[in-house]
Amino acid sequence: MFNFTLLHNCGKARAGIINTDHGDILTPVFMPVGTLGTVKAMSPHELEEIQAQIILGNTYHLYMRPGLDIIRKAGGLHKFISWTRPMLTDSGGFQVMSLAALRKISIEGVKFRSHIDGSLHHFTPEFVMEIQQALGADIIMSFDECPPFAATKDYIAKSLNTTLHWAERGKKAFTNTEHQALFGIVQGGVYEDLREKSALALMDMDFPGYSIGGLAVGEGKEDMMRITNFLNDILPKHKPRYMMGVGTPSDLLNNIANGVDMFDCVMPTRNARKGSIFTRYGKMIIKAARYKEDFRPIDPICGCYTCTHFSRAYIRHLITMNEILGMRLTTIHSLWFYQELMQMARKAILENRFEDFLAEMLPVLDTIVE
Amino acid sequence: MFNFTLLHNCGKARAGIINTDHGDILTPVFMPVGTLGTVKAMSPHELEEIQAQIILGNTYHLYMRPGLDIIRKAGGLHKFISWTRPMLTDSGGFQVMSLAALRKISIEGVKFRSHIDGSLHHFTPEFVMEIQQALGADIIMSFDECPPFAATKDYIAKSLNTTLHWAERGKKAFTNTEHQALFGIVQGGVYEDLREKSALALMDMDFPGYSIGGLAVGEGKEDMMRITNFLNDILPKHKPRYMMGVGTPSDLLNNIANGVDMFDCVMPTRNARKGSIFTRYGKMIIKAARYKEDFRPIDPICGCYTCTHFSRAYIRHLITMNEILGMRLTTIHSLWFYQELMQMARKAILENRFEDFLAEMLPVLDTIVE
Repeated sequence: MFNFTLLHNCGKARAGIINTDHGDILTPVFMPVGTLGTVKAMSPHELEEIQAQIILGNTYHLYMRPGLDIIRKAGGLHKFISWTRPMLTDSGGFQVMSLAALRKISIEGVKFRSHIDGSLHHFTPEFVMEIQQALGADIIMSFDECPPFAATKDYIAKSLNTTLHWAERGKKAFTNTEHQALFGIVQGGVYEDLREKSALALMDMDFPGYSIGGLAVGEGKEDMMRITNFLNDILPKHKPRYMMGVGTPSDLLNNIANGVDMFDCVMPTRNARKGSIFTRYGKMIIKAARYKEDFRPIDPICGCYTCTHFSRAYIRHLITMNEILGMRLTTIHSLWFYQELMQMARKAILENRFEDFLAEMLPVLDTIVE
Repeated sequence: MFNFTLLHNCGKARAGIINTDHGDILTPVFMPVGTLGTVKAMSPHELEEIQAQIILGNTYHLYMRPGLDIIRKAGGLHKFISWTRPMLTDSGGFQVMSLAALRKISIEGVKFRSHIDGSLHHFTPEFVMEIQQALGADIIMSFDECPPFAATKDYIAKSLNTTLHWAERGKKAFTNTEHQALFGIVQGGVYEDLREKSALALMDMDFPGYSIGGLAVGEGKEDMMRITNFLNDILPKHKPRYMMGVGTPSDLLNNIANGVDMFDCVMPTRNARKGSIFTRYGKMIIKAARYKEDFRPIDPICGCYTCTHFSRAYIRHLITMNEILGMRLTTIHSLWFYQELMQMARKAILENRFEDFLAEMLPVLDTIVE
C-alpha cells in the first residue's frame, strides 16, 4: 500500500501524509540513514524515541554485506534489523559511481568490482529491482546513473538517456507493487532543459513518487535551489518529491520552501559522531574548550534523552575520549533536532506562516554556537 | 551511610545486603566497570535495565581526564555522569603500576608520569583520599601498591608494609565517613603468611569492608582460589569482601564459593565489543561462520533487549562491520547475563543449594558454544 495526500500548501512549501504498509509518514520528513542495516550508533528503540518515521537502507552496501541471501532468509530487511516502521532503499546507483572500482557503464547496466573484495558484479535495472524487492522497503528507487558534478553537459545528457531507459526497464521488472512504491529519479545536473526532459519522461511512466538525484554533489547551494525551484513547477502536485542526500538543517528548510517533501542525509549522524552537533542555535562544536566546564545541556529546552540527562561538559569529555556513549548522545540529539525541525516546518506550513518560520530560523542554523 | 548485613551462608558462600546513600546492593554482586565515567557502549538508562546495582569508576583515569576540577564543579561523579545508583572507585594503585611511566615508589607515595602527556604527578595516600572524596563514590579504596605477579616474595613483603602504612594514613586523612565507606585492600601475592599479615593488620584498623587485591594478575586459578579460600577464614564475617578485577563467570562462582561478596571486571564489556559474548551455555564467538544464517537470539530464554529483539545473524553482521550497535548489543547481553548469574547465585545461597547450582553451571560456563 502506498498513498500520498497533499494536505496543505504555504507558498510552494507542502505538508502531506504518506501511507505505507508499515505506517504513515507526515511530510516534510527527514529520514535517518541506516547504511548497513543500522543508523550508526542508534538502536531501533532509540530511533522510535527520536520520532524517526522512516529510515533509509543502502542497496549497494546491503547487497555486499551481509548479502541478499541472508536478508531474504531473515524475511526481509525490516525483520533482519528489527525495525517496524517504514523504510526506503536507494538504487545503489550513487554508491556504484562513488565507491565501486573499474566501472563499465553500458546501456545494459553497470559492471563493477566491489570496493571490499574486488569481486565482479553486474547491476542492471532488473537486478536492482530484484535486490530491492528482497530487501522489502516500503519505498524503493529506480536504478540510475548519478554523474559527478564535474561531468560535461554532453555527458550528463547521454547519461540521462541511459537512466531513463533504466527507469523504464526497472518499472517493467518491478512486480511487488502492492507492498512497495517505486520512485523514478530525476537527473540532469544543473541544467534546466535536461531536468525538464528527465522529469517529463519519468512522469510519462507515471511513478508514485519522484526523487531528485544528482544534487548536493558539489554544485553549490544556489544551483541546488535553482533546480528544486525549477522542478517544483514541473513535478506533479499529488506525488511526493524526495531530494536525495540532502542536507544541513538550512538546506532542508530552503528546499521545503521549493516544494520538496522528503530528505535523507548522513550529515546529522556522521557529524555528531565527530562532535559537531546540530541545534536550533546553530552548530555546536562540543570539543571546544569553552564547554569544558559548561554544565548546561546541549539545548536547555530540548526534550531528547541527551539534553534531559547530560551536560555539555560530560559529552565533551566522552567525545574527547572517543567513548561510544559520546557518539550515541550527540547522534541522539542531532537526529531529534532534525525530526523536531521537520515537525516545526510542518506546523508552520499548516498554519500558513512558513515564510516567517524560515525568516526566524535561517539566520542562526548555519552559525557556530558561541 | 554504609551498612552490610550478612543474611545467609551456604557453605562458605554468602548472601547479604549493603546499604548506601544511593541505594541498596544485594550480594553477591558484580559491578560493571566505567573506567572514564562511562561503562563502555552503555547509557545509564541501559545500565538500570540490565539491573546493575553499582558501577565502578577508575580514580587514576578520572583524575587524568576530565580531571578533578571539572568533576568537583559538576557536583561529583554521580552528577557528572548522570548515575543515581551506588558507585565504587578504586585507589588508582593498579593503574599507577600498570600504566604510568617512570614510577618512583617511596614510603611517601608514588611519583609518576602520566601515560597520556608525560606530566608529573604524586599520589600519596592522603591525596588519593582527596581525589576519591571529590569523586564521591559510595565505596572507596585505600591507596595500595599492587606488585606484579613476577615480583619476589621479598619484594611483596616489603611492598605490603608500604601498603599497610598507606592504609593507616589514608584512613586518618579520610573524613567523609558519613557518606562514603573506605575499604582496606589485602595484598600479599600468593603467600598465605603475607596475606594473613595483611588481613590482620587491616582488621586492626577496622575498615567497613575489605578488598582482595593483587589477584588475577597471572597467578592462575588454583592460586587465586587458594588465597580467597584462605582469607575466608580470616576476614571478619560481618564485613563485605570485594575481589578486585575478577573475572570470568566461573571465576565469580568459584570465588563466591570461597566467601567473596563483590566483583568487578572489564571482561564482559571488553570481550563483548570484540564479539565474544558470555552466555549461560558458554562463550559465544559471534563472528563464527556458523552464525551467519542463525536467526535465533543469542540466548532464546534471556530477557535482555538484545535477546528479545535481535538475531545472532544480525549481531554477527553488525560486529563484523564494526558497527557501534553491534558492540552495544553484545555488551547489553553480557552484562545482563553477569547480573542474572549473580541473582541466580544469591537465590541458590538463600535456598541452601549453592553447591548444586555450582555443579550445574560450572561445566558449561568456560566452554565455547558450538
